Amino acid sequence: MASTSSTPPTIPITVMKFGGTSVADCDRIQRCAERVARTRRAGHGVVVVVSAMGHATDELITLAERITPAPSKREMDMLMSTGEQVSVALMAMALHTHGVDAVSLTGGQMGIRTTDSHRSARIRSIVADRIRQEIAAGRVVVAAGFQGIAENGDITTLGRGGSDTTAVALAAALDVPRTGGVCEIYTDVDGVYTADPRLVPNARKVPRISYEEMLELAAQGAGVMHTRAVMFGEKYNVPIHVRHSLRPDEGTMIREESTAMEDAPVVGAALKADLGRVSLRRIPNEIGVQGTIFEAIARANIMVDDIVQTEFGDLANISFTVEHSDLADVKIVAGKVLEQLGTGELAVEIGLAKVSAVGAGMKSHTGVASTMFTALGAARIPIQNITTSEIKISCIVPKEHGNRALQVVHDAFGLGTDGNGGIGTVGRSEAGAVGR
Amino acid sequence: MASTSSTPPTIPITVMKFGGTSVADCDRIQRCAERVARTRRAGHGVVVVVSAMGHATDELITLAERITPAPSKREMDMLMSTGEQVSVALMAMALHTHGVDAVSLTGGQMGIRTTDSHRSARIRSIVADRIRQEIAAGRVVVAAGFQGIAENGDITTLGRGGSDTTAVALAAALDVPRTGGVCEIYTDVDGVYTADPRLVPNARKVPRISYEEMLELAAQGAGVMHTRAVMFGEKYNVPIHVRHSLRPDEGTMIREESTAMEDAPVVGAALKADLGRVSLRRIPNEIGVQGTIFEAIARANIMVDDIVQTEFGDLANISFTVEHSDLADVKIVAGKVLEQLGTGELAVEIGLAKVSAVGAGMKSHTGVASTMFTALGAARIPIQNITTSEIKISCIVPKEHGNRALQVVHDAFGLGTDGNGGIGTVGRSEAGAVGR
Repeated sequence: MASTSSTPPTIPITVMKFGGTSVADCDRIQRCAERVARTRRAGHGVVVVVSAMGHATDELITLAERITPAPSKREMDMLMSTGEQVSVALMAMALHTHGVDAVSLTGGQMGIRTTDSHRSARIRSIVADRIRQEIAAGRVVVAAGFQGIAENGDITTLGRGGSDTTAVALAAALDVPRTGGVCEIYTDVDGVYTADPRLVPNARKVPRISYEEMLELAAQGAGVMHTRAVMFGEKYNVPIHVRHSLRPDEGTMIREESTAMEDAPVVGAALKADLGRVSLRRIPNEIGVQGTIFEAIARANIMVDDIVQTEFGDLANISFTVEHSDLADVKIVAGKVLEQLGTGELAVEIGLAKVSAVGAGMKSHTGVASTMFTALGAARIPIQNITTSEIKISCIVPKEHGNRALQVVHDAFGLGTDGNGGIGTVGRSEAGAVGR
Repeated sequence: MASTSSTPPTIPITVMKFGGTSVADCDRIQRCAERVARTRRAGHGVVVVVSAMGHATDELITLAERITPAPSKREMDMLMSTGEQVSVALMAMALHTHGVDAVSLTGGQMGIRTTDSHRSARIRSIVADRIRQEIAAGRVVVAAGFQGIAENGDITTLGRGGSDTTAVALAAALDVPRTGGVCEIYTDVDGVYTADPRLVPNARKVPRISYEEMLELAAQGAGVMHTRAVMFGEKYNVPIHVRHSLRPDEGTMIREESTAMEDAPVVGAALKADLGRVSLRRIPNEIGVQGTIFEAIARANIMVDDIVQTEFGDLANISFTVEHSDLADVKIVAGKVLEQLGTGELAVEIGLAKVSAVGAGMKSHTGVASTMFTALGAARIPIQNITTSEIKISCIVPKEHGNRALQVVHDAFGLGTDGNGGIGTVGRSEAGAVGR
């Protein structure tokens, strides 16, 4: 992503993003506007990014479905982008009632140029001249999240997590870090937790977490922020403050790794439930065989979790985990691959879960893996598989032990309110609602 | 308005405009799409202009009112323009289900450049390259009516009659007349009538009427098409076909005056009810006094109908008609003007109506005025005032005689189904609904 550069702004610029539940009706829009007005009065330049109002998106989808079961993606983008356009106009009006000079802008008007893959476009560049002008003129910019324009001027949408991505991308394009500002993501949860508080009662909100840890936690099953937005933040070093839209409390700051953060080997624990494991056994141990298998699976749009390969002479076993819901499709695809290879056996296990411990501090700490395995063993939870990366350790366990395994790992690293440190995984007080 | 010129198209281009009631729900959108598909299959290049769905506009206004009683006009345009954007996306999807290749475009995407006076912008130019490309590629263009963009990229709306104006302006920009095409305005009435059929039962639909006559009839109280769109049609000589969106019948063609049309001295009759007359009597008969009076009235945003001045030596009387609803305001303004002049008396009459006969043929016919006065006299209807233009005669009569006066004038010129010719005024089978 290229950002237009210019003279450094003289005031901190803060990007404030409000999701669909935060702007679900006119009263809530007014409450968000109050919050924006306070930030503006504190002397910040402000860009407010908003999503479509609560159920506006669903209503638009229903309209399209009444016309056709298979609407064109281009026309869906034309339709869906009106949701954010309504929100930004209303938010600008609400800011005016608070005496704040504000102007709403569509994706096109703020120069968000994307690829032309409708419904899942990627941001190519932001030509932020108009936004800079408005901020320089003392106006709050109310930016439509989730949308941009393709090279031919067609309206595009960014797909899942789109509005979060818009917010972080705008913060990057506006050099927000250099101005001393921050990208605030207002949502319906308090922040990032050491583990999902619905599963782990003593889970703790963490004040800081690194991009890398946040990404790994999200990959291991934690929610709150969309991975795509965090990756943008990491790439452009934009500090992201995840906080509750109705509470004044500080949430969690996602930012670069610091020395202080490395003191704790593990920042959080996460759980993926309802996994299945597919094993292709006794297949030829030849160059290219892995490519054949996973290309076929990717073509079927199946997301594969951890992959493990073991070999013995001319033969190999390859096993990988997938979501339960993908198992039926995987069996068909894997069966065809074995036919193609002319040899091998297919085995499928169901009822698995994966518990993970994540922390950048692992890089410089020893004994993290043994602490985890020992704790699970002491709790008499069988470990069926182990995978690791530089900053995470995952264990496949039987599904019925999943929740308990999460609690055990969480407490083994002292992550809880009764523990003595560590920062951790992501909790959500409510399902859904975050994302677009 | 400047249109981009290019090589003349090889197929006729038809612009089809559907108003809000015609696209009020998904079923109606499908029916309109069927009609478009037929025109397309007949070999025409087609541009479909659509308004916002039925009550979409009202719903958006309600949302804004919940935020503030006095929303910014710029933000209202941002908000309101989503109404047409939803319609065009759904119409394009509906056309796809009929096997018609179609693409929707916003005002900005079709290059409709306007002034920046939000909520009542005027079209400055249309850069129709994108539309031409799409038509050349065999696609039906579904164009959002009522909207454009200002020089700075802000979304504007055209105000009352905006979608009709969009349709005629696009027809002009695309050289529709030169291609042998036409601009079709689909609405909830059959066409233009010799008089309002709700008031005159024997009123007749007229097959053709000139721009000039249509404009004069509209000024004298007839509806159907917005004056602004007709003026655009006249300026660029775009034939406008007003017809019913649910019936196959031909409606009324509005086009240049023809010799045949001149054969009938009167084309239609119209009525304005609920008028009041304001007289400023015994004011100084001096240069500039009229300017003083009507500048004050214009500043108060009051529309003045006919003005009559009589003079006697150093003094003059000036009287004019206004809508009843404006009378209270006019009295205040006129009182102040008399104070300023230092002399004169104010008199106000209420309960008046104005009946008019309109026809370009008057230019070459004699006895039109006497026919009208004689008929009213025979019906014992008193005439309180007379005003004329080159193509119309108007008489002020007491309000209680208004409807009968309309019928009398209509029949005096043989305009009805039982008459022997003449083409005439505008009737509406239903109030409201036309315009945007």
